Amino acid sequence: MHPAKVAALLELLENDKRLALWQQIDPHREGRILPHLNITLRRELAGDSADAQHARQEAQLDSSKGEVNHLEAIREALGLKKLKRVGKILHRMHPAKVAGLLEALPPEERLSVWSMVETERAGKVLIYLHDEIRVALALELDLEDLIASASQLELDDRVDLIQSLPSELGAKLLRASSASQRSQLESMLAYPEDSAGGLMNADVIQVRADVKVSTVLRYLRLLETLPPQTDLLMVVDRKGHYQGGLRLSVLVTADLERPVAELLDSAIVGIAASASGSEVDQRFKELDLLSAPVVDEDNRVIGRITLDDVADLMREDSERTLMQMAGLDDEADIFAPVLVSSRRRAVWLGINLITAFSAAWVIGLFQATLEQLVALAVLMPIVASMGGIAGSQTLTLVIRGLALGQVQKGNFRILLNRELGISILNGVLWAVVIALLAVAWFGHWGLGAVLGSAILINLLCAALAGWGIPLLLERMGIDPALAGSVILTTVTDIVGFFAFLGLASLLLL
Amino acid sequence: MHPAKVAALLELLENDKRLALWQQIDPHREGRILPHLNITLRRELAGDSADAQHARQEAQLDSSKGEVNHLEAIREALGLKKLKRVGKILHRMHPAKVAGLLEALPPEERLSVWSMVETERAGKVLIYLHDEIRVALALELDLEDLIASASQLELDDRVDLIQSLPSELGAKLLRASSASQRSQLESMLAYPEDSAGGLMNADVIQVRADVKVSTVLRYLRLLETLPPQTDLLMVVDRKGHYQGGLRLSVLVTADLERPVAELLDSAIVGIAASASGSEVDQRFKELDLLSAPVVDEDNRVIGRITLDDVADLMREDSERTLMQMAGLDDEADIFAPVLVSSRRRAVWLGINLITAFSAAWVIGLFQATLEQLVALAVLMPIVASMGGIAGSQTLTLVIRGLALGQVQKGNFRILLNRELGISILNGVLWAVVIALLAVAWFGHWGLGAVLGSAILINLLCAALAGWGIPLLLERMGIDPALAGSVILTTVTDIVGFFAFLGLASLLLL
Repeated sequence: MHPAKVAALLELLENDKRLALWQQIDPHREGRILPHLNITLRRELAGDSADAQHARQEAQLDSSKGEVNHLEAIREALGLKKLKRVGKILHRMHPAKVAGLLEALPPEERLSVWSMVETERAGKVLIYLHDEIRVALALELDLEDLIASASQLELDDRVDLIQSLPSELGAKLLRASSASQRSQLESMLAYPEDSAGGLMNADVIQVRADVKVSTVLRYLRLLETLPPQTDLLMVVDRKGHYQGGLRLSVLVTADLERPVAELLDSAIVGIAASASGSEVDQRFKELDLLSAPVVDEDNRVIGRITLDDVADLMREDSERTLMQMAGLDDEADIFAPVLVSSRRRAVWLGINLITAFSAAWVIGLFQATLEQLVALAVLMPIVASMGGIAGSQTLTLVIRGLALGQVQKGNFRILLNRELGISILNGVLWAVVIALLAVAWFGHWGLGAVLGSAILINLLCAALAGWGIPLLLERMGIDPALAGSVILTTVTDIVGFFAFLGLASLLLL
Repeated sequence: MHPAKVAALLELLENDKRLALWQQIDPHREGRILPHLNITLRRELAGDSADAQHARQEAQLDSSKGEVNHLEAIREALGLKKLKRVGKILHRMHPAKVAGLLEALPPEERLSVWSMVETERAGKVLIYLHDEIRVALALELDLEDLIASASQLELDDRVDLIQSLPSELGAKLLRASSASQRSQLESMLAYPEDSAGGLMNADVIQVRADVKVSTVLRYLRLLETLPPQTDLLMVVDRKGHYQGGLRLSVLVTADLERPVAELLDSAIVGIAASASGSEVDQRFKELDLLSAPVVDEDNRVIGRITLDDVADLMREDSERTLMQMAGLDDEADIFAPVLVSSRRRAVWLGINLITAFSAAWVIGLFQATLEQLVALAVLMPIVASMGGIAGSQTLTLVIRGLALGQVQKGNFRILLNRELGISILNGVLWAVVIALLAVAWFGHWGLGAVLGSAILINLLCAALAGWGIPLLLERMGIDPALAGSVILTTVTDIVGFFAFLGLASLLLL
């Protein structure tokens, strides 16, 4: 369309439609359209562009200070319906930051912003998103756009994307890949996401052990570029079996006439494709690696893992622990529709209701006692609360100790003795303090004695439960972080109320 | 001492002292001593060595399966006083694994095992330990041994070690370094541990922008070896100002005649030494870096950071959040003396006692009401418990959202609206369910109504508190993970009891 025609069209439109259209026009065409507009409109729309210019300068200024609130800038632009400005802000941001921004937006605004992400960057942005939002936004794209954006990704990222999409859509993405890539993708998809096979990328450079440094250098120069994050070449023998790693840092300092066999580091053992994420992490730690080869059963190199992917996986693990302890899903959208989130959290509240009613049931057994001595009702939450707190300390310690390997088969018993020791010391200390406070409050020595004894019993029991529950869950193959704290609270509530009210019935009435 | 003399000495000793001495003898001297012993002793002690041999084979077998319980093997050897076997097992383990093993041992056994770690590996082991144990074990070494083991460390690790030691001992370590290293160490010590300056290492290779690839390669060959984990050379101009990074992977594929200036990646911006750990992490993520340069105010390269150190820092951060939410110190020894651990945990229990007594005080206000209707005492923990669970979900979500940047200034309000919406839906749902259960239990419609209303009020309040407390703490510069859950529980307990018992007093009596 000729600029003059566009200008005429713009003049015909209502104010807000005009602005919406203007937002869709390429920045470099703006200058050619403006002269055709009447003076009022020209000022108005040019002002809008100057506005964007201004916003850009501002953002640059901010980013030189190291801190920008992109979120506020974007939401303001959205509020003014200035999508073009949104696009410009996004364009300057790294895909990881765009992903963070998308996650921080409520769903409707998120869709508007998502529509302004360039197709060639959309794939990279998807990779940085948590699963729920990733799937939702991928489904927003046309299939062609999704395929185009996925084709920009490295293979390991593409595998990630395919794995998180609904299987039908994933299969379409797979079929859209070139034949050679498809077979690589399929072999990578065969491994679980958090195994070495699932973490690996296929972009390996292999060299033969029997060639000289000068030959390797010549070969690399023929390749022209190496894959990103290459610090290691994989050395194989004539039959393609993996022999060791040749670090680029060794290659560039080596004498040109030396054979690779003398320079390779055989300590860089190939990681089995089936190795778990934590085994991979251990290997990286042990060898101070930045990248490592993955081998199949025949000891042939099928890919390599880079440290950043391992680090991401490990971080996600500890994030998941934190979220699960509160009954939350770490891959969920924190701005998911209220109804969806409510349903998820309702489940957790329902499970905890069982705990709460068990505690109430125990109290119910002692209604007669409570009627006679209402001070018991006043003090009983203290017993349960102290037990819960002490127990959750032991529980957290054991859960984290299991994850770090500080707690393992050889020291379960020692740990229990220690935790019991601590709970006896703290039990006695706080039993005395709380008993005295209760006596001071109600002037009833027997009540103080019963309260103190119940606290001591509950702290001992809390230590035992905080120690035993995660070990038991672990052995049963259940993640202790998921169910541990609910079960623990049930135990400390029931034992606490039972000990306190039971002792009171026996001794005080 | 001549082998015959050692043999004579061994024959003179009592059984357990003899075994202890035998354990101290070098393996390669054993063979020369054995022939001088009488036949019974020869068999016994040779058997012990064969034993060690056997243990070694066993361990190798195990490690080929990928799983060894070193802890049990070591504790068994300790139990038999076979320190030499301990030394042999340790010798085959990576320093990171040795550190993990030491952390998994109770203090007395830990000291025995520590005494068997070779001095040249002790420094590396110290680096992998959490602070408390690191300091304790470093203090066990003679000063010369500590200095010798520290001298094996890279500078960034040495800085770490010095920072965690008592200042006097740290100063001694510093003085024991060579003059040139000392000035580097001092400049690194000037930065906080979790800043770019604290994370960096000084082992940078710099090249000039105006030289050719062939010159760089010749220079590198003169150096003979590059520092571990080198994937990047730092390019500077004639005045030493940082220009960009030259990846080894680019260097090895480039034409020999091209100048470095054409090959450098200027997107690899120098990180300011004062940048925070999370800024550094962000930079690494954005640029897919394995290592990055650190520059001073004059844009001169003063060091480099490798990805593994950034990953460790970030992992420690999320570990700390988990531990702090239970009032635990993530650097503490889980096998610290019971008295020490008790004192630490007592503080946390004491803080929580304030919460518990506040709740009791609220209940105390309604003693007259409770006397008239004891069913209130039975049901009241349900109100507090549901509020606590719902609140801690919101709290955890916000704490993690703040850490990931999902929650920030531009969306506080939206998040609050959502959380309130969820709590209304769940509040109504569970209020009805719980009210009906209570009616079924006590056959008292008024009681059910009061209970349901209190639950609804408390869930609303929990959402508000779970949202507001971390934001407030963050603004006050207090880590929300540290104090958040205590304050939240105080709020949900007080509001829950007050709402339930207050409504009951007003409506049911």
